[in-house]
Amino acid sequence: MAQYSDLEKAINTLVTQFHAASADNGPVLKTDELKGLLSSQMPNLAKTAGTEQGLSTILQTMGVGDGEGISFKHFWNFIQSVASSQHGLLAGQTGTSCNCILL
Amino acid sequence: MAQYSDLEKAINTLVTQFHAASADNGPVLKTDELKGLLSSQMPNLAKTAGTEQGLSTILQTMGVGDGEGISFKHFWNFIQSVASSQHGLLAGQTGTSCNCILL
Repeated sequence: MAQYSDLEKAINTLVTQFHAASADNGPVLKTDELKGLLSSQMPNLAKTAGTEQGLSTILQTMGVGDGEGISFKHFWNFIQSVASSQHGLLAGQTGTSCNCILL
Repeated sequence: MAQYSDLEKAINTLVTQFHAASADNGPVLKTDELKGLLSSQMPNLAKTAGTEQGLSTILQTMGVGDGEGISFKHFWNFIQSVASSQHGLLAGQTGTSCNCILL
């Protein structure tokens, strides 16, 4: 396998993790599959997603309509919306400071 | 440092790489800084970005206006637009097939 940069590997991780969450290898995720993904990969968020109210807020942030499957684009929108707070968290732990405009 | 999931680490890589590309630790990237980032992290794309025409197309895909700095949101839009083709490439090499709707 060819060498990929850290950035390319990170993009691939995002796509692969999303894809792996689909039990039937389908093009979009069901709500329960999204809950599984958040629970295994984003445990802090999963606490929120565990409640009906929290999950509904997350689906709304993603722009998912009633009864609609969750596409990678929905997931991507959501990740963007959490990247900012997560970066702040990690930056605090590694002692670096950051003033980039994330959103 | 606490344990993070693969997904959380991938998000952090995207944010960190973007941030590291700014020479003056600024909130947005200059065009030259973006070229440096693409050149080191996305060598295939860098061939395109090396021409004036190609770079202008990339900036257009990102939604960057004339003379405007490149924010993380611009970068994020762009990564989404390339994730699809890159995933196809990696999937081909690892022998897995994928029918997810990426965009």
